[in-house]
Amino acid sequence: MKAKLSHVREDGSLAMVDVGAKTPTARTAVARARVRLGADAASALRGAALAKGDAFAAAQLAGIMAAKRTDELIPLAHPIAVGAVDVSFGWDDDATLRVTARASTFGQTGVEMEAMVAASVAALTIYDMCKAVDKGIVVESVRLVEKTGGKSGDWRLSE
Amino acid sequence: MKAKLSHVREDGSLAMVDVGAKTPTARTAVARARVRLGADAASALRGAALAKGDAFAAAQLAGIMAAKRTDELIPLAHPIAVGAVDVSFGWDDDATLRVTARASTFGQTGVEMEAMVAASVAALTIYDMCKAVDKGIVVESVRLVEKTGGKSGDWRLSE
Amino acid sequence: MKAKLSHVREDGSLAMVDVGAKTPTARTAVARARVRLGADAASALRGAALAKGDAFAAAQLAGIMAAKRTDELIPLAHPIAVGAVDVSFGWDDDATLRVTARASTFGQTGVEMEAMVAASVAALTIYDMCKAVDKGIVVESVRLVEKTGGKSGDWRLSE
Amino acid sequence: MKAKLSHVREDGSLAMVDVGAKTPTARTAVARARVRLGADAASALRGAALAKGDAFAAAQLAGIMAAKRTDELIPLAHPIAVGAVDVSFGWDDDATLRVTARASTFGQTGVEMEAMVAASVAALTIYDMCKAVDKGIVVESVRLVEKTGGKSGDWRLSE
Amino acid sequence: MKAKLSHVREDGSLAMVDVGAKTPTARTAVARARVRLGADAASALRGAALAKGDAFAAAQLAGIMAAKRTDELIPLAHPIAVGAVDVSFGWDDDATLRVTARASTFGQTGVEMEAMVAASVAALTIYDMCKAVDKGIVVESVRLVEKTGGKSGDWRLSE
Amino acid sequence: MKAKLSHVREDGSLAMVDVGAKTPTARTAVARARVRLGADAASALRGAALAKGDAFAAAQLAGIMAAKRTDELIPLAHPIAVGAVDVSFGWDDDATLRVTARASTFGQTGVEMEAMVAASVAALTIYDMCKAVDKGIVVESVRLVEKTGGKSGDWRLSE
Repeated sequence: MKAKLSHVREDGSLAMVDVGAKTPTARTAVARARVRLGADAASALRGAALAKGDAFAAAQLAGIMAAKRTDELIPLAHPIAVGAVDVSFGWDDDATLRVTARASTFGQTGVEMEAMVAASVAALTIYDMCKAVDKGIVVESVRLVEKTGGKSGDWRLSE
Repeated sequence: MKAKLSHVREDGSLAMVDVGAKTPTARTAVARARVRLGADAASALRGAALAKGDAFAAAQLAGIMAAKRTDELIPLAHPIAVGAVDVSFGWDDDATLRVTARASTFGQTGVEMEAMVAASVAALTIYDMCKAVDKGIVVESVRLVEKTGGKSGDWRLSE
Repeated sequence: MKAKLSHVREDGSLAMVDVGAKTPTARTAVARARVRLGADAASALRGAALAKGDAFAAAQLAGIMAAKRTDELIPLAHPIAVGAVDVSFGWDDDATLRVTARASTFGQTGVEMEAMVAASVAALTIYDMCKAVDKGIVVESVRLVEKTGGKSGDWRLSE
Repeated sequence: MKAKLSHVREDGSLAMVDVGAKTPTARTAVARARVRLGADAASALRGAALAKGDAFAAAQLAGIMAAKRTDELIPLAHPIAVGAVDVSFGWDDDATLRVTARASTFGQTGVEMEAMVAASVAALTIYDMCKAVDKGIVVESVRLVEKTGGKSGDWRLSE
Repeated sequence: MKAKLSHVREDGSLAMVDVGAKTPTARTAVARARVRLGADAASALRGAALAKGDAFAAAQLAGIMAAKRTDELIPLAHPIAVGAVDVSFGWDDDATLRVTARASTFGQTGVEMEAMVAASVAALTIYDMCKAVDKGIVVESVRLVEKTGGKSGDWRLSE
Repeated sequence: MKAKLSHVREDGSLAMVDVGAKTPTARTAVARARVRLGADAASALRGAALAKGDAFAAAQLAGIMAAKRTDELIPLAHPIAVGAVDVSFGWDDDATLRVTARASTFGQTGVEMEAMVAASVAALTIYDMCKAVDKGIVVESVRLVEKTGGKSGDWRLSE
């Protein structure tokens, strides 16, 4: 038996999955990205952050705003009345920033993509602010770490 | 001497960089993402791709369309009349898809962010189509591999 | 007695229809467009389609993505949580492509405009890809062919 | 020799045409749509129009605003600094409204799609306001009637 | 005891308020703006308005369309399925236009921001049409005048 | 002689002004809004601002991002390649916040509307964060304070 892609019909063409018959439930998803900055960019970002917090605020807001527009970015994603999106930051080591995005809704489809988009765009915004310092910055490991709700149930990344 | 972040002013608050005085030049940028799919999702994606090519077409178009809207996603990015965006795919190994995005313009600012956004959103679209098969898929190593043009000149990732 | 336009108030000014009191129901709509291509463009399109299916994939995705943004395009349309949009293609004759768009939702207002927008934008995308071959291509007969649900009930075009 | 689609590369995959090397020139395009309304809807629309002009103003503005976002709707269209968009209306017969859209720019690519999008969305907005009166309304004959400028030169529909 | 800002967490960083647990209720909000035009611009606007109503139609539609996109403009606003938005105009005195915007929904969060955005953007559109006549035009007193529904109950501006 | 509105044609209908023949020049505009907060909201906002600066960062970014989309909000505004947008804050008195927005471009049309939109949306974002504390907050005096460049030359508000 073959695993099957979402959004791909029998004849190989694409379609949005019809969610009409699904009962709304509470759903959450948490995604994470890492931004490997290098020493110079990490130091510049910490400096800016210490001063006013605006660098992280920009990335946080960019992630939140992008998550609300997930269905405009991902062709077959459903429009979702996102209940909340949250983006926060931490340091995995001196030069590696961790971006954590959490999305929730009460609806018929999951918010995994909203969390993934929020984490990606927040990471790209950090990249944008640091790219003049170092062109070798890498956004790595954008992935789901947790989801709750929906027919497929809860899931948590085992690390 | 400290490295300085773009977009951050002396007082620590944020601003778009004023490009008014810059002379327009030809600029290109190439970015790359990897999607580590795992065996099942890679096999499902290859199957769909063989059938009609639509899965990759969806990711390609999503990347192109997102690149044209980079300035709506990245708060301090300039609106740019993108001349071309191109997204293509290859396999790094059996279960790892490589996404390569190339953007070009004739203008006052570089298109690094356009290429990074195109690669990220194309990778996220692949993720969206495969996520029902495997929740452990990772978008990794979104990074610049090349840029040409502009005051800072040409740059190429040394691998 | 005069028939009355939606969205036009007694004094002649415009307004969104208030849907607050309506009970949500399942609704669907199917719209259709024809693209009269001429022999050269039809042949070029069939050639491209045979090769990879990307030309139709582009039109299909453009239609789906536009449908999700119907309320941004049509001034007095309501924002709708579209449950599914589907765009497919067929040939009415050698040189005339038929675009069929189907939209569905569980909500307070119909999805006729979503289906009409999807069919129109998919047809315009085909036009865009073929316009270098023939400037005389015509998008014709964009119309509703079926709707179900809502207070006004089901309707089907009699042909 | 086979005619070739724009946006389709040798391998059958899609791409934006690179306009980097093109010299900017003045370009215009005129597109036209017809809305076959039927007697009741035409009469309702004329009534509303006589009262305040708002019905046509809504369609006109919807067309203009959509034209400015053509590159968000048509996947491989370039972002263009549209210089002007103009939408006007006339009656072909008692029950058939004619929508004429004119777009212009000084740039590297033509504005045919901008004119086509403006005419289509203006027609769809008329449809939206009249659809409660008659479900059989048809948007027909969306087509280019004239273009000027660019490498391919001027063109006019011969009727 | 200190009053607390919405959207600001204990640690001072920002977040969307999670509305997951709230019961949907009927909600309305009315906001108002004044545009102090000066004699010349007011006279020009009245002249245009008398002719066809299009100047006010443009402002009305701009306000309605912006209200539907409130969550794209205001970073921490929730996406809302706006049930209706209504913008109307009156004269406070010979040279001062009053813009009144009313929004309603059946949902988990209020529509104050939708009404405020509608009133602001309608006023700015009037400004845009009149700014060539007088650069001293002022949009003043954008404020809430009424809200109903939600946990905090009804409220009315006492004048 | 009567003053004439921009965007209104002889027959009273609306149109974008054609800028095709204009020579690009450097242009700037500064607009200002005041947010009359009242004592409680002003104190809450100062408290939040002292903690991390995020409240002002949110308003600043919202203003900048909205300015880049001015042509999507204001129906007859031209798409402009904004060179820079800048939003800053000050206190006029203990309870009245001053928002100053500056936009610049090198192009064919002025950036007055970009500055006005930036000031308005930044003010509305402050309003959004403070509205739970006080429903009587007023955005007042959104107006142009300075413009440079273009055929009509420089202008400065005399206070």
